[in-house]
Amino acid sequence: MTKKIPHRLYLTEDQMPKQWYNLRADMKEQHDPMINPATGKPAKAEDLYPVFCEELAKQELDNTTRYFDIPQEVLDIYKIYRPSPLCRAFNLEKALDTPAKIYYKFEGNNTSGSHKLNSAVAQAYYAKQQGLKGVTTETGAGQWGTALSEACSYFGLDLEVYMVKVSFTQKPFRKSIMETFGGNVFASPSDRTEAGRKILAEDPDNSGSLGCAISEAVERAVTSDGYRYVLGSVLNQVLLHQSIIGLEAEQAMAVLDEYPDIVIGCAGGGSNLGGLIAPFMRDKITGKKDPRIVAVEPASCPSFTRGVYKYDFCDTGKITPMAKMYTLGCTFKPSANHAGGLRYHGMSPILSKLYHDKYMEAVAVEQTKVFDAAVQFAKLETILPAPESAHAIRCAIDEAVKCRETGEEKTILFGLTGTGYFDMTAYAAYNEGKMADHIPTDEELRPAIEAIPTIPGIQE
Amino acid sequence: MTKKIPHRLYLTEDQMPKQWYNLRADMKEQHDPMINPATGKPAKAEDLYPVFCEELAKQELDNTTRYFDIPQEVLDIYKIYRPSPLCRAFNLEKALDTPAKIYYKFEGNNTSGSHKLNSAVAQAYYAKQQGLKGVTTETGAGQWGTALSEACSYFGLDLEVYMVKVSFTQKPFRKSIMETFGGNVFASPSDRTEAGRKILAEDPDNSGSLGCAISEAVERAVTSDGYRYVLGSVLNQVLLHQSIIGLEAEQAMAVLDEYPDIVIGCAGGGSNLGGLIAPFMRDKITGKKDPRIVAVEPASCPSFTRGVYKYDFCDTGKITPMAKMYTLGCTFKPSANHAGGLRYHGMSPILSKLYHDKYMEAVAVEQTKVFDAAVQFAKLETILPAPESAHAIRCAIDEAVKCRETGEEKTILFGLTGTGYFDMTAYAAYNEGKMADHIPTDEELRPAIEAIPTIPGIQE
Repeated sequence: MTKKIPHRLYLTEDQMPKQWYNLRADMKEQHDPMINPATGKPAKAEDLYPVFCEELAKQELDNTTRYFDIPQEVLDIYKIYRPSPLCRAFNLEKALDTPAKIYYKFEGNNTSGSHKLNSAVAQAYYAKQQGLKGVTTETGAGQWGTALSEACSYFGLDLEVYMVKVSFTQKPFRKSIMETFGGNVFASPSDRTEAGRKILAEDPDNSGSLGCAISEAVERAVTSDGYRYVLGSVLNQVLLHQSIIGLEAEQAMAVLDEYPDIVIGCAGGGSNLGGLIAPFMRDKITGKKDPRIVAVEPASCPSFTRGVYKYDFCDTGKITPMAKMYTLGCTFKPSANHAGGLRYHGMSPILSKLYHDKYMEAVAVEQTKVFDAAVQFAKLETILPAPESAHAIRCAIDEAVKCRETGEEKTILFGLTGTGYFDMTAYAAYNEGKMADHIPTDEELRPAIEAIPTIPGIQE
Repeated sequence: MTKKIPHRLYLTEDQMPKQWYNLRADMKEQHDPMINPATGKPAKAEDLYPVFCEELAKQELDNTTRYFDIPQEVLDIYKIYRPSPLCRAFNLEKALDTPAKIYYKFEGNNTSGSHKLNSAVAQAYYAKQQGLKGVTTETGAGQWGTALSEACSYFGLDLEVYMVKVSFTQKPFRKSIMETFGGNVFASPSDRTEAGRKILAEDPDNSGSLGCAISEAVERAVTSDGYRYVLGSVLNQVLLHQSIIGLEAEQAMAVLDEYPDIVIGCAGGGSNLGGLIAPFMRDKITGKKDPRIVAVEPASCPSFTRGVYKYDFCDTGKITPMAKMYTLGCTFKPSANHAGGLRYHGMSPILSKLYHDKYMEAVAVEQTKVFDAAVQFAKLETILPAPESAHAIRCAIDEAVKCRETGEEKTILFGLTGTGYFDMTAYAAYNEGKMADHIPTDEELRPAIEAIPTIPGIQE
């Protein structure tokens, strides 16, 4: 007899994971280390201390500790909004007439509206532990900035948020919500930093990018007393914190006697994808199971599918260490796609390594097709997805339709990272038929890729 | 040994109520019936059929059936977003240093962002069952319009929404989300109806009211083939559907061996309050328990605390039947308070009767103090409340502070009806210190109250 599957399964508070899982401890090969471009040498924890909180710098470089205890203070906040539900998309399945089972892990049930709070709480906690006065950060779509404002408000930390200018304009209310939690929000490029002023001098109408906002936030952190920089994606520490998504999903599926054949997540810098897939990728690496793992990125910013696997800067201003990753080049200027959280030139080094070693697939999808999926999903499942999350929905629907054609009863799991309440400008454009796709030509991609700096002795 | 109380308790799908509870069946005295102003006679179901769906008209008038089975199709949708969590505000309690236990029933975890979906799904279902082409409605804050758009999209019904103009302007994205679900949204007063045109002729800058929007929606329903009017509050049928809130809350508290000493809900038309308190009021009426029940309304629209208990029209245009209720007069023009959902001149006849018979208390609170509570709550509990919901938070905090002073360990339960993602204009005004309170003077209230029509033989 098969188990009765609820529409939404919530683990109990007692079932919540008490540790984060560090996938690196199980990877057969590690990604190449971050390097200090000045010396060409791998960055050590001490090299990172001026930028990152010490505990976070240690997590960043630790590829042997398999599990990290989640501090009690962090667990106490997790319990306010977690566990997040594992949902079965019965209505979507029915509408698609597919034999596939579609599950999604929904991370949008908190004020920040996304999974970003999982790492924001952890990072704010460690900053407070270190006795810092405040932190700086960048935000694209605004989800990370909102989450961090919430976390900083909780721990009594000051916060400066550099928000990509195009999102700042598209989403006026994101600023208001960050300010409600006490965050200070600036459109990036701003005139508050060398990096920002330089970009504005060259291009006063520059609409910003995550790479540029990172430069500004890092510059402010290293030049302000008692401040450090925190980042919502890309970094290993972020994937570590976000493993709570995958661990809960794995456990909830186990309760239902289920295991995914396909795990799908949207990929900007990799925070959600890396967290969601962690335990499933572990099973794949260790040979216990063999799920397909699929990253979904926007066709307008296709780092996996059309980028190169090289050392590159994490920011436009070239003040961060360099990471080996799939990148479109740190000077790449993404088009004004509405999924602001996926408009990053690079990609998590962990995920880049896994993709390079063929543990993962990647697909790029067009914005209008993503919104087709978002609206279909919203009407059937009573959740209005964030545009970023809708990339995963698009792919899940496409896979479920393939199952209809082949008759395969696959179990699909995707990450629904957040809600689209602050994305109504995008939905309005879609409703009015005014949404365009922005797919760069090879010629448009080439300059930024060719401009990736050559580091003597490392890559030439 | 006391039970371990989780931060959020979700009932399982199997524990969900399968029936709505009709409080009227247990009331010692019924409220006076709706009357047809033309005849002065109580309205019969048949009198209501031109306006309401037949099944809903029957529910409206039924004060003897204690439980109504929730149709399977409605349950199937409830299961996508329900049960809603019963939350314990541990952080808020700690911050207030109160011995009180603060629980809240959170209804915001669905796309419409509020409890309104509970009745929207039911009403859309009955409209579809009757073979209607579509429905019309009004919306204040936009929560009801969004919920109904969602429900109509699900059942394939056309929808016209008349949205109070001041909200339409304050919340531009509410229109977008309703349109995403296929709803047609018009700012009210509009030029699409006699009622709207009349108001605009007298006052072209009229910023609208729920009473006026109701007139427009009703007029459109009765003059369009295959349409009926649906309403998100005030009516008995709505309180019936919303009883799911209270039933779930009662059951979840029972799981925790808890029972509230005080039950608190915000009150505009009464949809949330009536639903939340239903089982607790039953216990009070039947003498089983004696909880305090508190309605919280805005000081700017104080129907309970400063209105009169009289027969009045439910709308400004005076085309609805008349109801005996607490009212500020159907021509009352509320100020531009940010809690659009509480800006209604009247009040549920059921709740009015209970208040009149002293089963309930009511308090009126000022907008700035409401937002103080909203922001304090958001920072501690990771939910950004809707301004309407924050009225209940204000009162809950005030009661918890009283407990601190008296040392009483009371158990407080309040209804957190929804989220404030579409209320960032209000939060921005608050953040910038630009929020004002609008408390009408007695002189300002008098004209509309004196203008309540006199019905020969009924009230003179």
